[in-house]
Amino acid sequence: MTGYNIAVVGATGAVGQVFLSMLAERQFPINSLRLCASQRSIGRNLVVNGRDHTVELVTDELLAASDFVFISATTDVSRDVGRRAADLGAVAIDDSSAFRMDSDVPLVVPEVNAADLDGHKGIVAIPNCSTTPLAMVLHALSGLSRIQRVVVDTYQSVSGTGSAAVQELLEQSGQVLAGATVEPAVYPHQIAFNALPHIDDFRQDGYTKEERKMIDETRKILHMPDLPLSATCVRVPVTVGHSEAVHIEFAEPVDPVDARSALADYPGVQLVDDPAGRRYPMPIEAEGEDDVLVGRVRADASHPNGLALWLSSDNLRKGAALNATQIAEEMVRRHLVNPRS
Amino acid sequence: MTGYNIAVVGATGAVGQVFLSMLAERQFPINSLRLCASQRSIGRNLVVNGRDHTVELVTDELLAASDFVFISATTDVSRDVGRRAADLGAVAIDDSSAFRMDSDVPLVVPEVNAADLDGHKGIVAIPNCSTTPLAMVLHALSGLSRIQRVVVDTYQSVSGTGSAAVQELLEQSGQVLAGATVEPAVYPHQIAFNALPHIDDFRQDGYTKEERKMIDETRKILHMPDLPLSATCVRVPVTVGHSEAVHIEFAEPVDPVDARSALADYPGVQLVDDPAGRRYPMPIEAEGEDDVLVGRVRADASHPNGLALWLSSDNLRKGAALNATQIAEEMVRRHLVNPRS
Repeated sequence: MTGYNIAVVGATGAVGQVFLSMLAERQFPINSLRLCASQRSIGRNLVVNGRDHTVELVTDELLAASDFVFISATTDVSRDVGRRAADLGAVAIDDSSAFRMDSDVPLVVPEVNAADLDGHKGIVAIPNCSTTPLAMVLHALSGLSRIQRVVVDTYQSVSGTGSAAVQELLEQSGQVLAGATVEPAVYPHQIAFNALPHIDDFRQDGYTKEERKMIDETRKILHMPDLPLSATCVRVPVTVGHSEAVHIEFAEPVDPVDARSALADYPGVQLVDDPAGRRYPMPIEAEGEDDVLVGRVRADASHPNGLALWLSSDNLRKGAALNATQIAEEMVRRHLVNPRS
Repeated sequence: MTGYNIAVVGATGAVGQVFLSMLAERQFPINSLRLCASQRSIGRNLVVNGRDHTVELVTDELLAASDFVFISATTDVSRDVGRRAADLGAVAIDDSSAFRMDSDVPLVVPEVNAADLDGHKGIVAIPNCSTTPLAMVLHALSGLSRIQRVVVDTYQSVSGTGSAAVQELLEQSGQVLAGATVEPAVYPHQIAFNALPHIDDFRQDGYTKEERKMIDETRKILHMPDLPLSATCVRVPVTVGHSEAVHIEFAEPVDPVDARSALADYPGVQLVDDPAGRRYPMPIEAEGEDDVLVGRVRADASHPNGLALWLSSDNLRKGAALNATQIAEEMVRRHLVNPRS
């Protein structure tokens, strides 16, 4: 079996770590694995699948020897490394917002728009972790009736910000329980026992960049450039797992029974919808799961053609590392990458 | 100055305790104060405003001697005590859902529909703690253009469930931090570092009773019986303070600048809307505040006549005890209660 030369940029981060376990879990065919991270981690030893790896700098030599370069770092690093990787003949699969809206960069959730990979030019972007589960759910339901409008409000976990944010939530929680003073560092305000309607920077129009990402990326992935969509993105004191309350307006009435069937049949979606049994998606149950959990499917009381639902998804897995791995698998399946080894 | 005979049923509960401090804080004219609670608290001593009070049973003698009976207990207690109080000539101000939708019971947020008090028949209901701030915001904006549709998703704190739920959140948080096992008691699932899309019981149509309350109560308070409104109510690991992401569709376009003015001018609403300064409503800032905090006011990207906003409100104060006190004040102002003393 053919193996690929893999480079992981941001290997020590929250997503990078999940990505490394994902490669092993899914038995992705690897010829060589090279790990890169920021300056302060260079030379550090990381054990992956029982083997030692030394963290390296991202050099042109390294990129030129790679088939796939997975990048989950800062947007600046992505911008630099992504272009260099593509120029040197590798395929960059990038987790940042650097390239997502570029017209020559496919933005892909394999279950939704794998065919967009065919036009790749060396860089493929994965969507923001709150966009991916929404795009899947909308795609799953799009066969029932034309989607006319979407309103989504999110409940996002701190691991979406990174490992330091998880640490901050846990430390602050302990401080609040002990009656000690909390001093925010990663977030502008206390996150423990609080909710922050503020993810990424604010724009002039009052939306955050995170909210705008959900709007623009969903439209691009679904090939619906004019889809009316509104989002409020909120950080909640949850470690892993993003949840979303979604309200969808269709062209015609959609029976919740049909919606549940369509969702249950959709790859990568797991229907968790048994209110009587107190079963519905929750972040603590989504954590560690590959599937997007969907439940609370019901007629939306505010519109005759409306449907309301609730989802929870592991933002580090399907929201990032799993989706990236699936893109690589799909590119292999489509013979879009010829291994150099 | 005339004083009133006050009885508080549920005096040892989360809302009861805030209510007692509210009476003192607002210098409500009191002639006598009698405290009632469940069987296990009878005989217990409570200090209110420096004076000792013994917790009593709710007897007919007590109700017949009262001008106002504030009830924040179980729905069963409300149903029993509310009717008895009214029959015995007192005014019951009730915090439960027992009477809210009764046609002969005013359901009142004084800033919105104080005039509904005039038709009272001895029982006045206060809305559910998630309904009150929503009704205020919608009323504040209703002068700008006719409201055609509302979608709201909530981020509700555990104190809305009661003191035991606050205890459960804090205990579970400590257990999770210590790596210990969590055993849910008040909630069906772990609430620490989680989000539960489940408040009150589920109905056949897939909505929870809490969500249905938001729909029905908002319509009644605003005198808009057909207002299209949808809600997803979610419990988050916050101790005090309910937050809501609100999406409003008007008959004509509404400028966010005008919306901010209308909200800033509205009594009981405080505009906290300075994204550049990282100022927006948060539950930890709403806690202990009388005002409903409103911010993130912006055009709703999913509809040309839409407006999106975010609010946080102290569910124990404006959501319950403060609103109850304001109702009593308003009834005194309108000469709707003649003190027996």
